Amino acid sequence: MWLPIDPQSDFSIHNLPYGIFSIDSGPKRAGVALGDQVIDLYALAEMGTFRDLGIQPSVFQSDFLNDYIALGKKVHAALRQRLQVMLEDESSPFRELSGRFLHPQASVQMHLPVKIGDYTDFYSSEQHAFNVGTMFRDPQNALLPNWKHLPVGYHGRSSSIFVSGTNFKRPLGQTRPKDDEPPVFGPTRSLDFELEVATVIGGNTQNGQRVSVAEAEDYVFGFVLFNDWSARDVQKWEYVPLGPFLAKNFFSAISPWVVTTEALAPFRVPAPEQDPAVLPYLKGGKHQNFDVALEVELETTSGQKAIISQSNFKYLYWTVAQQIAHHTINGCNLNVGDLMASGTISGPEPGSYGSMLELTWGGKNPLTLPDGSQRRFFEDGDRLTIRGFSQKEGLKVGFGSVSSTVLPADPF
Amino acid sequence: MWLPIDPQSDFSIHNLPYGIFSIDSGPKRAGVALGDQVIDLYALAEMGTFRDLGIQPSVFQSDFLNDYIALGKKVHAALRQRLQVMLEDESSPFRELSGRFLHPQASVQMHLPVKIGDYTDFYSSEQHAFNVGTMFRDPQNALLPNWKHLPVGYHGRSSSIFVSGTNFKRPLGQTRPKDDEPPVFGPTRSLDFELEVATVIGGNTQNGQRVSVAEAEDYVFGFVLFNDWSARDVQKWEYVPLGPFLAKNFFSAISPWVVTTEALAPFRVPAPEQDPAVLPYLKGGKHQNFDVALEVELETTSGQKAIISQSNFKYLYWTVAQQIAHHTINGCNLNVGDLMASGTISGPEPGSYGSMLELTWGGKNPLTLPDGSQRRFFEDGDRLTIRGFSQKEGLKVGFGSVSSTVLPADPF
Repeated sequence: MWLPIDPQSDFSIHNLPYGIFSIDSGPKRAGVALGDQVIDLYALAEMGTFRDLGIQPSVFQSDFLNDYIALGKKVHAALRQRLQVMLEDESSPFRELSGRFLHPQASVQMHLPVKIGDYTDFYSSEQHAFNVGTMFRDPQNALLPNWKHLPVGYHGRSSSIFVSGTNFKRPLGQTRPKDDEPPVFGPTRSLDFELEVATVIGGNTQNGQRVSVAEAEDYVFGFVLFNDWSARDVQKWEYVPLGPFLAKNFFSAISPWVVTTEALAPFRVPAPEQDPAVLPYLKGGKHQNFDVALEVELETTSGQKAIISQSNFKYLYWTVAQQIAHHTINGCNLNVGDLMASGTISGPEPGSYGSMLELTWGGKNPLTLPDGSQRRFFEDGDRLTIRGFSQKEGLKVGFGSVSSTVLPADPF
Repeated sequence: MWLPIDPQSDFSIHNLPYGIFSIDSGPKRAGVALGDQVIDLYALAEMGTFRDLGIQPSVFQSDFLNDYIALGKKVHAALRQRLQVMLEDESSPFRELSGRFLHPQASVQMHLPVKIGDYTDFYSSEQHAFNVGTMFRDPQNALLPNWKHLPVGYHGRSSSIFVSGTNFKRPLGQTRPKDDEPPVFGPTRSLDFELEVATVIGGNTQNGQRVSVAEAEDYVFGFVLFNDWSARDVQKWEYVPLGPFLAKNFFSAISPWVVTTEALAPFRVPAPEQDPAVLPYLKGGKHQNFDVALEVELETTSGQKAIISQSNFKYLYWTVAQQIAHHTINGCNLNVGDLMASGTISGPEPGSYGSMLELTWGGKNPLTLPDGSQRRFFEDGDRLTIRGFSQKEGLKVGFGSVSSTVLPADPF
């Protein structure tokens, strides 16, 4: 390849994730990450690069990837191949012209990659559901009766999903610290993260249409890292009977680059065998997960840094394909740009739990940072970063990261 | 007024609700309902009618009302007054030109009025919460401990909200008819309606911004009738712990005309006194509901018709203003076109319950139609229509209706 790339870069030629960027106050455009550069798809398209693929340049001069995504997987595959061939051809005419379509990532601003229509959050990690059930309900019956029969999920808020780098104020809310006293009001005292990966839906369906497990991945464009910030004290008081609401909808963050299923194909691994057997509509297809190492770093205002969790996207009992089949079995219609998050991904070891709730076991076992300071939940000024990547045999496909900082609550 | 209007019409000159219509295969446009006519706002704007109000015609040649709504309440009030003056002036020059901007409602097709960003469903009728709690939990403690402290709500699906006249297929899903046996799969056997009114949000807020009860109605554009179709058997099996999901997201329907808060102003009534006292962030403003009579009609394939429920929008324990204040207390940001539904509105009498679940008390007391046939829940071919209107002292402001028909499930 004529463009030198650090072998440890998340953005190898095998990855080519899509995002939306701008330079200074210029218009938003679609781009592809490569090493420490952004490939400007609009600039390339204007040079005629994709004309024979039937892609109009205007689809890349857009605030969101949705219109490009809607062109379909054949177009995406053709563009991916076109870029790979161009970059691997040492005598490519594009090499001389690269100044016209390459920008250093350090010089661009990233934006939300997709216009999110509906956002669904699943609850598909068995260890996470088990941990929560053990803490809040009954250790002997930690999983609820429905959990192994269907991928439990619920609808979340789209408007408050922001791109990495956006910060947020500690939310205020109603909580009931003592069960026999009235509720109180104030800033949350148990601000938590949730380590998740979210699926970006890549196709539209009609209301009434079902998507089988086998065809589900035809409706997946790719994936982003997802941090579903949560206020546990608010959640505990509000969530019965209709589920989490204000405990979750104040702010969520996603990584800016959408990694495609094609890029993750070499990292497919068998998903856990399911026992009891699931109903026929949840069977079929490959029953595979993706092996993506995930890690969470906390950085405090005093400069302390600690990796507080190491998990993996493969720790899902319910696959993405099963989530989609379940979501549409009743005819619920999907749109390009919908987001379906995995739910907190906790692995089997305590160090792989995907939330402070689990890592500190409800605050009982605080995390100790290198300087001796402790965390049960997060404090103002704390910055959290989730990273994710797949790697094997010299092949690396990474997600980059999603970071956000907790700002103090506004006074009421 | 120079245009004769049936005094019993929902769409009096005091109403002037907004919708999106098209004629034949023409473009979608914004219109206002008046009697049995639609006022074509784009055509009027093209005639220069609103030029001095700073409204560009293009805002009305649109698939949705969102851009017009975003112009703000001052503009809406000015347009409302302009239309009323024009219609009441017997010598208005528009009278001669009315063929250019009036279309019979019978000749137009109505569409979804707003692009819905996020959809929230509240649970704000005390009688409904009490009925459900009595049936499913404990009659002695029917209301959960949080119910009188906060307006319980949850996020729903935007993509599957359609305009009146759209029909839907009976959803398939997973249910567990017997608690000690595994779940089964098939078409729902307890298809239900929910009688609701939904608020159309009229302003944007920033993430982190709070809206007080007193200022909440500044963020309300208006209201539509809402039928939140539900599959009770699916709901029962799936909803613990994260709330209703597939039981609700297969299809919901709204009435096409958005009735504004200005039109409903004469019908404000005091909201129920709240005991225990609510937290300060839920206080302030007028603490008022709107007196809107609601009725639900069932029509069967054999032509049987029956009014199965008569309720009222005023039967809300939590006001719309309190819903908005609660929704934003944690900084959750609103967008123009968001929908916030009331939750099922059940009045104090059994005939005013807003769902079959309540009307038949979980199926125990089936409804008997005039021909002797019975309904516990709905059958294929059943058509349900919700109507709503406010009326007093010769003043009538109505919503029109929202209708949909249950189509048979597709075979699996």
